Amino acid sequence: MLFFTQCFGAVLDLIHLRFQHYKAKRVFSAAGQLVCVVNPTHSLKYAPTRCAAAQVSTEQGILPPFHHHEAVHDPQVVPCTCPLFSCPWEGHLEVVVSHLRQTHRINILQGAEIVFLATDMNLPAPTDWIIMHSCLGHQFLLVLRKQEKYEGHPQFFATMMLIGTPSQADNFTYRLELNRNQRRLKWEATPRSILECVDSVISDGDCLVLNTSLAQLFSDNGSLAIGIAITTSKVHSAEAEM
Amino acid sequence: MLFFTQCFGAVLDLIHLRFQHYKAKRVFSAAGQLVCVVNPTHSLKYAPTRCAAAQVSTEQGILPPFHHHEAVHDPQVVPCTCPLFSCPWEGHLEVVVSHLRQTHRINILQGAEIVFLATDMNLPAPTDWIIMHSCLGHQFLLVLRKQEKYEGHPQFFATMMLIGTPSQADNFTYRLELNRNQRRLKWEATPRSILECVDSVISDGDCLVLNTSLAQLFSDNGSLAIGIAITTSKVHSAEAEM
Repeated sequence: MLFFTQCFGAVLDLIHLRFQHYKAKRVFSAAGQLVCVVNPTHSLKYAPTRCAAAQVSTEQGILPPFHHHEAVHDPQVVPCTCPLFSCPWEGHLEVVVSHLRQTHRINILQGAEIVFLATDMNLPAPTDWIIMHSCLGHQFLLVLRKQEKYEGHPQFFATMMLIGTPSQADNFTYRLELNRNQRRLKWEATPRSILECVDSVISDGDCLVLNTSLAQLFSDNGSLAIGIAITTSKVHSAEAEM
Repeated sequence: MLFFTQCFGAVLDLIHLRFQHYKAKRVFSAAGQLVCVVNPTHSLKYAPTRCAAAQVSTEQGILPPFHHHEAVHDPQVVPCTCPLFSCPWEGHLEVVVSHLRQTHRINILQGAEIVFLATDMNLPAPTDWIIMHSCLGHQFLLVLRKQEKYEGHPQFFATMMLIGTPSQADNFTYRLELNRNQRRLKWEATPRSILECVDSVISDGDCLVLNTSLAQLFSDNGSLAIGIAITTSKVHSAEAEM
Protein backbone atom coordinates (compact mmCIF):
# COMPACT_ATOMS: atom_id res chain seq x y z
CA MET A 1 0.00 0.00 0.00
CA LEU A 2 2.90 2.34 0.96
CA PHE A 3 4.57 1.50 -2.41
CA PHE A 4 1.46 2.50 -4.35
CA THR A 5 1.10 5.75 -2.32
CA GLN A 6 4.77 6.61 -3.06
CA CYS A 7 4.30 5.79 -6.77
CA PHE A 8 1.19 8.03 -6.89
CA GLY A 9 3.15 10.82 -5.14
CA ALA A 10 5.99 10.53 -7.67
CA VAL A 11 3.52 10.67 -10.59
CA LEU A 12 1.87 13.78 -9.06
CA ASP A 13 5.32 15.42 -8.69
CA LEU A 14 6.13 14.67 -12.33
CA ILE A 15 2.79 16.12 -13.48
CA HIS A 16 3.44 19.23 -11.36
CA LEU A 17 6.97 19.67 -12.80
CA ARG A 18 5.67 19.20 -16.34
CA PHE A 19 2.94 21.78 -15.68
CA GLN A 20 5.49 24.27 -14.29
CA HIS A 21 7.69 23.78 -17.39
CA TYR A 22 4.69 24.22 -19.71
CA LYS A 23 3.60 27.32 -17.79
CA ALA A 24 7.06 28.87 -18.23
CA LYS A 25 6.97 28.21 -21.96
CA ARG A 26 3.39 29.15 -22.82
CA VAL A 27 0.81 30.69 -20.55
CA PHE A 28 -2.78 31.49 -21.36
CA SER A 29 -3.58 34.86 -19.88
CA ALA A 30 -6.92 35.80 -18.33
CA ALA A 31 -7.97 37.37 -21.64
CA GLY A 32 -7.42 34.05 -23.40
CA GLN A 33 -4.44 35.36 -25.38
CA LEU A 34 -1.45 33.10 -25.87
CA VAL A 35 1.49 34.42 -23.85
CA CYS A 36 4.90 33.21 -24.90
CA VAL A 37 7.83 33.63 -22.53
CA VAL A 38 10.91 34.50 -24.59
CA ASN A 39 14.33 34.27 -22.99
CA PRO A 40 17.12 36.54 -24.21
CA THR A 41 20.04 35.47 -26.34
CA HIS A 42 23.26 37.46 -26.32
CA SER A 43 24.19 38.48 -29.85
CA LEU A 44 27.32 36.57 -30.73
CA LYS A 45 28.34 38.31 -33.89
CA TYR A 46 26.71 40.55 -36.45
CA ALA A 47 27.55 40.17 -40.12
CA PRO A 48 26.86 43.63 -41.59
CA THR A 49 28.49 42.88 -44.95
CA ARG A 50 26.10 40.01 -45.63
CA CYS A 51 23.15 42.16 -44.63
CA ALA A 52 24.30 45.20 -46.59
CA ALA A 53 24.63 43.12 -49.76
CA ALA A 54 21.24 41.51 -49.24
CA GLN A 55 19.59 44.89 -48.63
CA VAL A 56 21.01 46.63 -51.69
CA SER A 57 19.81 43.82 -53.91
CA THR A 58 16.30 43.67 -52.43
CA GLU A 59 15.99 47.48 -52.64
CA GLN A 60 16.71 47.17 -56.35
CA GLY A 61 14.05 44.50 -56.60
CA ILE A 62 16.65 41.79 -57.13
CA LEU A 63 17.17 38.99 -54.65
CA PRO A 64 20.60 38.47 -53.05
CA PRO A 65 23.05 37.17 -55.67
CA PHE A 66 25.58 35.79 -53.13
CA HIS A 67 28.70 37.24 -54.71
CA HIS A 68 30.89 35.24 -52.39
CA HIS A 69 29.90 32.06 -54.27
CA GLU A 70 30.29 33.68 -57.69
CA ALA A 71 27.51 31.50 -59.10
CA VAL A 72 23.96 32.21 -60.31
CA HIS A 73 21.65 31.06 -57.55
CA ASP A 74 17.94 30.37 -57.41
CA PRO A 75 16.40 33.73 -56.31
CA GLN A 76 14.39 31.86 -53.66
CA VAL A 77 17.64 30.72 -52.01
CA VAL A 78 18.43 32.95 -49.04
CA PRO A 79 21.27 33.03 -46.53
CA CYS A 80 20.39 32.34 -42.90
CA THR A 81 18.82 35.63 -41.84
CA CYS A 82 18.63 34.74 -38.17
CA PRO A 83 19.90 38.00 -36.73
CA LEU A 84 21.75 36.36 -33.87
CA PHE A 85 24.47 34.53 -35.64
CA SER A 86 26.72 34.88 -38.66
CA CYS A 87 25.52 31.48 -39.83
CA PRO A 88 27.03 30.02 -43.02
CA TRP A 89 23.76 28.26 -43.91
CA GLU A 90 21.77 29.19 -46.98
CA GLY A 91 18.67 27.59 -48.45
CA HIS A 92 15.27 28.03 -50.06
CA LEU A 93 12.72 30.31 -48.39
CA GLU A 94 10.56 27.20 -47.76
CA VAL A 95 13.18 25.66 -45.46
CA VAL A 96 14.16 28.80 -43.54
CA VAL A 97 11.58 28.02 -40.83
CA SER A 98 12.88 24.50 -40.20
CA HIS A 99 16.47 25.81 -40.19
CA LEU A 100 15.60 28.50 -37.60
CA ARG A 101 13.74 25.95 -35.46
CA GLN A 102 16.30 23.18 -35.64
CA THR A 103 19.62 25.04 -35.71
CA HIS A 104 18.78 28.18 -33.73
CA ARG A 105 16.03 26.59 -31.60
CA ILE A 106 13.61 29.48 -32.17
CA ASN A 107 10.09 28.68 -31.00
CA ILE A 108 7.11 28.99 -33.33
CA LEU A 109 3.68 30.08 -32.12
CA GLN A 110 0.26 29.80 -33.77
CA GLY A 111 -2.53 32.39 -33.59
CA ALA A 112 -3.52 35.80 -34.93
CA GLU A 113 -2.90 37.55 -31.60
CA ILE A 114 -0.19 36.57 -29.13
CA VAL A 115 1.70 38.17 -26.26
CA PHE A 116 5.49 38.12 -26.50
CA LEU A 117 6.89 38.24 -22.95
CA ALA A 118 10.58 39.13 -23.10
CA THR A 119 12.41 38.31 -19.85
CA ASP A 120 15.57 39.80 -18.30
CA MET A 121 15.24 43.22 -19.94
CA ASN A 122 18.01 44.51 -17.69
CA LEU A 123 20.71 42.37 -19.35
CA PRO A 124 23.40 44.50 -21.02
CA ALA A 125 23.24 45.27 -24.76
CA PRO A 126 23.55 43.72 -27.29
CA THR A 127 20.79 41.21 -26.51
CA ASP A 128 18.04 39.78 -28.74
CA TRP A 129 14.69 38.17 -28.06
CA ILE A 130 13.36 36.21 -31.04
CA ILE A 131 10.28 34.17 -31.83
CA MET A 132 8.51 32.88 -34.93
CA HIS A 133 4.82 33.47 -35.36
CA SER A 134 2.66 31.37 -37.68
CA CYS A 135 -0.45 33.21 -38.83
CA LEU A 136 -2.68 33.70 -41.93
CA GLY A 137 -0.83 30.92 -43.76
CA HIS A 138 2.60 32.53 -43.32
CA GLN A 139 5.46 32.57 -40.84
CA PHE A 140 6.77 35.78 -39.29
CA LEU A 141 9.90 36.46 -37.24
CA LEU A 142 9.60 38.89 -34.32
CA VAL A 143 12.87 40.43 -33.22
CA LEU A 144 13.30 42.56 -30.10
CA ARG A 145 16.83 43.93 -29.80
CA LYS A 146 18.56 45.85 -27.03
CA GLN A 147 21.34 47.84 -28.66
CA GLU A 148 23.53 50.85 -27.91
CA LYS A 149 23.06 53.12 -30.92
CA TYR A 150 24.52 55.93 -28.83
CA GLU A 151 27.29 54.71 -26.54
CA GLY A 152 26.14 54.23 -22.97
CA HIS A 153 22.45 54.67 -23.92
CA PRO A 154 20.89 51.30 -24.78
CA GLN A 155 17.56 51.32 -26.60
CA PHE A 156 15.03 48.62 -27.48
CA PHE A 157 14.02 48.03 -31.11
CA ALA A 158 11.17 45.72 -32.10
CA THR A 159 10.24 44.68 -35.63
CA MET A 160 8.50 41.91 -37.52
CA MET A 161 9.82 40.22 -40.67
CA LEU A 162 7.87 37.96 -43.02
CA ILE A 163 9.56 34.70 -43.95
CA GLY A 164 8.65 35.38 -47.57
CA THR A 165 9.27 37.83 -50.40
CA PRO A 166 8.85 41.65 -50.14
CA SER A 167 5.73 41.49 -52.38
CA GLN A 168 4.18 38.89 -50.04
CA ALA A 169 5.09 41.09 -47.04
CA ASP A 170 3.14 44.00 -48.58
CA ASN A 171 -0.08 42.01 -48.03
CA PHE A 172 0.19 42.24 -44.24
CA THR A 173 0.12 44.74 -41.40
CA TYR A 174 1.56 43.92 -38.00
CA ARG A 175 0.83 45.68 -34.72
CA LEU A 176 2.99 45.76 -31.60
CA GLU A 177 1.34 47.04 -28.44
CA LEU A 178 2.66 47.88 -24.98
CA ASN A 179 0.12 48.55 -22.24
CA ARG A 180 0.98 49.19 -18.59
CA ASN A 181 0.89 51.84 -15.87
CA GLN A 182 -1.91 53.80 -17.61
CA ARG A 183 0.27 54.16 -20.71
CA ARG A 184 -0.21 52.56 -24.10
CA LEU A 185 2.13 52.56 -27.08
CA LYS A 186 1.12 51.04 -30.43
CA TRP A 187 3.21 50.59 -33.57
CA GLU A 188 1.63 49.46 -36.84
CA ALA A 189 3.52 48.87 -40.07
CA THR A 190 3.95 46.56 -43.03
CA PRO A 191 6.35 43.75 -42.10
CA ARG A 192 9.67 43.66 -43.93
CA SER A 193 10.71 40.58 -45.86
CA ILE A 194 13.32 38.32 -44.31
CA LEU A 195 15.26 38.90 -47.57
CA GLU A 196 15.92 42.40 -46.23
CA CYS A 197 18.16 42.75 -43.21
CA VAL A 198 16.93 43.21 -39.65
CA ASP A 199 20.15 45.13 -38.83
CA SER A 200 19.39 47.83 -41.39
CA VAL A 201 15.71 48.06 -40.33
CA ILE A 202 16.95 48.73 -36.80
CA SER A 203 19.75 51.12 -37.79
CA ASP A 204 17.22 53.05 -39.93
CA GLY A 205 14.97 53.23 -36.82
CA ASP A 206 12.00 52.08 -38.94
CA CYS A 207 10.51 50.03 -36.11
CA LEU A 208 9.16 50.38 -32.58
CA VAL A 209 11.86 52.20 -30.60
CA LEU A 210 11.91 52.41 -26.80
CA ASN A 211 14.28 54.31 -24.55
CA THR A 212 15.37 52.42 -21.42
CA SER A 213 13.19 54.64 -19.19
CA LEU A 214 10.08 53.95 -21.30
CA ALA A 215 10.90 50.22 -21.44
CA GLN A 216 11.08 50.24 -17.64
CA LEU A 217 7.69 51.95 -17.37
CA PHE A 218 6.18 49.21 -19.54
CA SER A 219 8.03 46.27 -17.98
CA ASP A 220 7.00 44.30 -14.93
CA ASN A 221 9.67 42.73 -12.77
CA GLY A 222 12.24 42.83 -15.60
CA SER A 223 9.86 41.39 -18.23
CA LEU A 224 8.33 43.30 -21.13
CA ALA A 225 4.99 42.09 -22.56
CA ILE A 226 4.41 43.01 -26.22
CA GLY A 227 1.01 42.26 -27.73
CA ILE A 228 1.33 41.17 -31.37
CA ALA A 229 -1.41 41.10 -33.98
CA ILE A 230 -1.14 40.44 -37.72
CA THR A 231 -3.82 41.30 -40.26
CA THR A 232 -4.04 41.43 -44.03
CA SER A 233 -3.48 44.97 -45.33
CA LYS A 234 -6.62 47.01 -45.97
CA VAL A 235 -5.33 48.25 -49.33
CA HIS A 236 -4.87 44.72 -50.57
CA SER A 237 -8.16 43.59 -49.06
CA ALA A 238 -9.92 46.45 -50.87
CA GLU A 239 -8.19 45.55 -54.12
CA ALA A 240 -9.28 41.94 -53.70
CA GLU A 241 -12.88 43.07 -53.18
CA MET A 242 -12.87 45.14 -56.38
CA MET B 1 -18.52 101.04 -64.18
CA LEU B 2 -14.76 100.45 -64.41
CA PHE B 3 -14.40 101.89 -60.90
CA PHE B 4 -16.97 99.41 -59.51
CA THR B 5 -15.29 96.49 -61.29
CA GLN B 6 -11.91 97.49 -59.80
CA CYS B 7 -13.44 97.85 -56.35
CA PHE B 8 -15.05 94.41 -56.65
CA GLY B 9 -11.68 92.97 -57.78
CA ALA B 10 -9.92 94.54 -54.80
CA VAL B 11 -12.54 93.13 -52.40
CA LEU B 12 -12.13 89.69 -53.98
CA ASP B 13 -8.32 89.95 -53.56
CA LEU B 14 -8.74 90.89 -49.91
CA ILE B 15 -11.12 87.96 -49.32
CA HIS B 16 -8.63 85.64 -51.02
CA LEU B 17 -5.72 86.94 -48.90
CA ARG B 18 -7.80 86.63 -45.75
CA PHE B 19 -8.72 83.06 -46.75
CA GLN B 20 -5.06 82.18 -47.40
CA HIS B 21 -4.09 83.56 -44.00
CA TYR B 22 -6.92 81.65 -42.31
CA LYS B 23 -5.95 78.47 -44.17
CA ALA B 24 -2.38 78.79 -42.90
CA LYS B 25 -3.61 79.16 -39.34
CA ARG B 26 -6.42 76.63 -39.22
CA VAL B 27 -7.40 74.19 -41.91
CA PHE B 28 -10.29 71.80 -41.96
CA SER B 29 -9.03 68.54 -43.40
CA ALA B 30 -11.04 66.23 -45.65
CA ALA B 31 -11.97 64.16 -42.59
CA GLY B 32 -13.46 67.24 -40.94
CA GLN B 33 -10.80 67.37 -38.24
CA LEU B 34 -9.45 70.74 -37.18
CA VAL B 35 -5.85 71.08 -38.34
CA CYS B 36 -3.74 73.68 -36.57
CA VAL B 37 -0.48 74.81 -38.14
CA VAL B 38 2.05 75.34 -35.34
CA ASN B 39 5.25 77.24 -36.08
CA PRO B 40 8.37 76.44 -34.08
CA THR B 41 9.85 78.61 -31.38
CA HIS B 42 13.51 78.35 -30.47
CA SER B 43 13.94 77.68 -26.79
CA LEU B 44 15.50 80.78 -25.31
CA LYS B 45 16.40 79.57 -21.88
CA TYR B 46 15.43 76.66 -19.68
CA ALA B 47 15.04 77.16 -15.95
CA PRO B 48 15.77 73.73 -14.45
CA THR B 49 15.97 74.97 -10.85
CA ARG B 50 12.43 76.35 -10.95
CA CYS B 51 11.18 73.13 -12.49
CA ALA B 52 13.10 70.89 -10.10
CA ALA B 53 11.64 72.71 -7.11
CA ALA B 54 8.14 72.52 -8.57
CA GLN B 55 8.51 68.81 -9.30
CA VAL B 56 9.78 67.82 -5.85
CA SER B 57 6.90 69.62 -4.19
CA THR B 58 4.23 68.16 -6.50
CA GLU B 59 5.72 64.66 -6.07
CA GLN B 60 5.27 65.08 -2.32
CA GLY B 61 1.69 66.18 -2.91
CA ILE B 62 2.53 69.76 -1.96
CA LEU B 63 2.32 72.59 -4.43
CA PRO B 64 5.37 74.78 -5.13
CA PRO B 65 6.18 76.89 -2.08
CA PHE B 66 8.38 79.41 -3.96
CA HIS B 67 11.26 79.46 -1.50
CA HIS B 68 12.77 82.44 -3.27
CA HIS B 69 9.95 84.58 -1.92
CA GLU B 70 10.15 83.08 1.56
CA ALA B 71 6.43 83.63 2.03
CA VAL B 72 3.46 81.27 2.33
CA HIS B 73 1.65 81.37 -1.00
CA ASP B 74 -1.78 80.28 -2.07
CA PRO B 75 -1.29 76.67 -3.30
CA GLN B 76 -3.21 77.54 -6.46
CA VAL B 77 -0.60 80.16 -7.37
CA VAL B 78 1.85 78.75 -9.91
CA PRO B 79 4.89 80.16 -11.67
CA CYS B 80 4.70 80.55 -15.45
CA THR B 81 5.15 76.99 -16.66
CA CYS B 82 5.44 77.89 -20.30
CA PRO B 83 8.41 75.69 -21.20
CA LEU B 84 9.92 78.18 -23.62
CA PHE B 85 10.91 80.98 -21.36
CA SER B 86 12.29 81.56 -17.91
CA CYS B 87 9.41 83.90 -17.23
CA PRO B 88 9.24 85.69 -13.85
CA TRP B 89 5.42 85.67 -13.90
CA GLU B 90 3.42 83.73 -11.34
CA GLY B 91 -0.31 83.62 -10.76
CA HIS B 92 -3.39 81.56 -10.01
CA LEU B 93 -4.10 78.45 -12.10
CA GLU B 94 -7.22 80.20 -13.41
CA VAL B 95 -5.18 82.94 -15.09
CA VAL B 96 -2.40 80.73 -16.54
CA VAL B 97 -4.31 80.39 -19.84
CA SER B 98 -4.70 84.13 -20.33
CA HIS B 99 -1.02 84.65 -19.40
CA LEU B 100 0.11 82.02 -21.95
CA ARG B 101 -2.15 83.56 -24.63
CA GLN B 102 -1.29 87.18 -23.98
CA THR B 103 2.36 87.08 -23.00
CA HIS B 104 3.60 84.03 -24.94
CA ARG B 105 1.03 84.28 -27.76
CA ILE B 106 0.19 80.58 -27.62
CA ASN B 107 -2.89 79.73 -29.68
CA ILE B 108 -5.86 77.94 -28.13
CA LEU B 109 -7.97 75.44 -30.07
CA GLN B 110 -11.40 73.99 -29.33
CA GLY B 111 -12.52 70.42 -30.03
CA ALA B 112 -12.12 66.87 -28.76
CA GLU B 113 -9.96 65.79 -31.71
CA ILE B 114 -7.54 68.07 -33.51
CA VAL B 115 -4.48 67.71 -35.72
CA PHE B 116 -1.32 69.51 -34.58
CA LEU B 117 0.77 70.27 -37.67
CA ALA B 118 4.29 71.19 -36.58
CA THR B 119 6.25 72.96 -39.33
CA ASP B 120 10.01 73.21 -39.97
CA MET B 121 10.93 69.94 -38.26
CA ASN B 122 14.42 70.24 -39.68
CA LEU B 123 15.33 73.28 -37.57
CA PRO B 124 18.21 72.55 -35.17
CA ALA B 125 17.53 71.54 -31.55
CA PRO B 126 16.45 72.92 -29.11
CA THR B 127 13.13 73.89 -30.67
CA ASP B 128 9.59 73.75 -29.28
CA TRP B 129 6.14 73.65 -30.84
CA ILE B 130 3.40 74.59 -28.39
CA ILE B 131 -0.36 74.91 -28.48
CA MET B 132 -3.22 75.03 -26.01
CA HIS B 133 -6.22 72.77 -26.45
CA SER B 134 -9.59 73.48 -24.86
CA CYS B 135 -11.65 70.33 -24.39
CA LEU B 136 -14.06 68.69 -21.91
CA GLY B 137 -14.23 71.86 -19.84
CA HIS B 138 -10.45 72.08 -19.34
CA GLN B 139 -7.40 73.52 -21.05
CA PHE B 140 -4.42 71.41 -22.02
CA LEU B 141 -0.94 72.38 -23.23
CA LEU B 142 0.64 70.27 -25.97
CA VAL B 143 4.42 70.50 -26.15
CA LEU B 144 6.52 69.01 -28.94
CA ARG B 145 10.23 69.46 -28.30
CA LYS B 146 13.27 68.73 -30.43
CA GLN B 147 16.18 68.17 -28.07
CA GLU B 148 19.62 66.57 -28.07
CA LYS B 149 19.52 64.16 -25.14
CA TYR B 150 22.57 62.48 -26.64
CA GLU B 151 24.94 64.99 -28.26
CA GLY B 152 24.60 65.09 -32.02
CA HIS B 153 21.44 62.95 -31.98
CA PRO B 154 18.33 65.13 -31.73
CA GLN B 155 15.07 63.45 -30.76
CA PHE B 156 11.45 64.62 -30.69
CA PHE B 157 9.43 64.45 -27.47
CA ALA B 158 5.68 65.10 -27.33
CA THR B 159 3.56 65.37 -24.20
CA MET B 160 0.33 66.90 -22.96
CA MET B 161 -0.10 68.81 -19.70
CA LEU B 162 -3.39 69.77 -18.03
CA ILE B 163 -3.67 73.38 -16.90
CA GLY B 164 -5.02 72.13 -13.59
CA THR B 165 -4.04 70.07 -10.55
CA PRO B 166 -2.55 66.52 -10.65
CA SER B 167 -5.81 65.08 -9.27
CA GLN B 168 -7.78 66.78 -12.07
CA ALA B 169 -5.26 65.46 -14.61
CA ASP B 170 -5.94 61.88 -13.41
CA ASN B 171 -9.47 62.18 -14.86
CA PHE B 172 -8.22 62.33 -18.44
CA THR B 173 -6.43 60.27 -21.06
CA TYR B 174 -4.76 61.85 -24.06
CA ARG B 175 -3.77 60.17 -27.29
CA LEU B 176 -1.15 61.30 -29.78
CA GLU B 177 -1.19 59.58 -33.17
CA LEU B 178 1.16 59.67 -36.14
CA ASN B 179 -0.02 58.07 -39.37
CA ARG B 180 1.88 58.13 -42.65
CA ASN B 181 3.71 55.90 -45.15
CA GLN B 182 1.83 52.75 -44.03
CA ARG B 183 3.09 53.27 -40.48
CA ARG B 184 1.10 54.26 -37.41
CA LEU B 185 2.37 55.18 -33.96
CA LYS B 186 0.00 55.83 -31.05
CA TRP B 187 0.82 57.01 -27.54
CA GLU B 188 -1.84 57.07 -24.82
CA ALA B 189 -1.30 58.28 -21.27
CA THR B 190 -2.71 60.34 -18.44
CA PRO B 191 -1.74 64.00 -18.92
CA ARG B 192 0.59 65.51 -16.34
CA SER B 193 -0.43 68.60 -14.43
CA ILE B 194 1.13 71.91 -15.43
CA LEU B 195 2.26 72.09 -11.77
CA GLU B 196 4.77 69.38 -12.68
CA CYS B 197 7.58 70.30 -15.03
CA VAL B 198 7.61 69.53 -18.75
CA ASP B 199 11.44 69.39 -18.66
CA SER B 200 11.40 66.48 -16.20
CA VAL B 201 8.65 64.64 -18.12
CA ILE B 202 10.88 64.84 -21.20
CA SER B 203 14.12 63.96 -19.40
CA ASP B 204 12.33 60.94 -17.84
CA GLY B 205 11.28 59.96 -21.39
CA ASP B 206 7.70 59.43 -20.12
CA CYS B 207 6.16 60.74 -23.35
CA LEU B 208 6.03 60.02 -27.07
CA VAL B 209 9.65 59.80 -28.23
CA LEU B 210 10.71 59.85 -31.88
CA ASN B 211 14.15 59.42 -33.36
CA THR B 212 14.96 61.78 -36.24
CA SER B 213 14.68 58.95 -38.78
CA LEU B 214 11.20 57.97 -37.54
CA ALA B 215 10.13 61.64 -37.45
CA GLN B 216 11.22 61.95 -41.08
CA LEU B 217 9.18 58.86 -42.04
CA PHE B 218 6.09 60.45 -40.47
CA SER B 219 6.68 63.99 -41.72
CA ASP B 220 5.62 65.45 -45.05
CA ASN B 221 7.69 68.23 -46.59
CA GLY B 222 9.23 69.15 -43.23
CA SER B 223 5.91 69.15 -41.33
CA LEU B 224 4.78 66.59 -38.78
CA ALA B 225 1.04 66.02 -38.27
CA ILE B 226 0.09 64.71 -34.81
CA GLY B 227 -3.53 63.70 -34.22
CA ILE B 228 -4.63 64.60 -30.70
CA ALA B 229 -7.64 63.23 -28.83
CA ILE B 230 -8.61 63.70 -25.20
CA THR B 231 -11.11 61.54 -23.34
CA THR B 232 -12.14 61.08 -19.73
CA SER B 233 -10.33 58.14 -18.11
CA LYS B 234 -12.20 54.84 -18.12
CA VAL B 235 -11.35 54.16 -14.44
CA HIS B 236 -12.91 57.43 -13.38
CA SER B 237 -15.89 56.98 -15.70
CA ALA B 238 -16.47 53.51 -14.19
CA GLU B 239 -16.20 54.95 -10.68
CA ALA B 240 -18.69 57.65 -11.59
CA GLU B 241 -21.13 55.03 -12.85
CA MET B 242 -20.91 53.04 -9.62
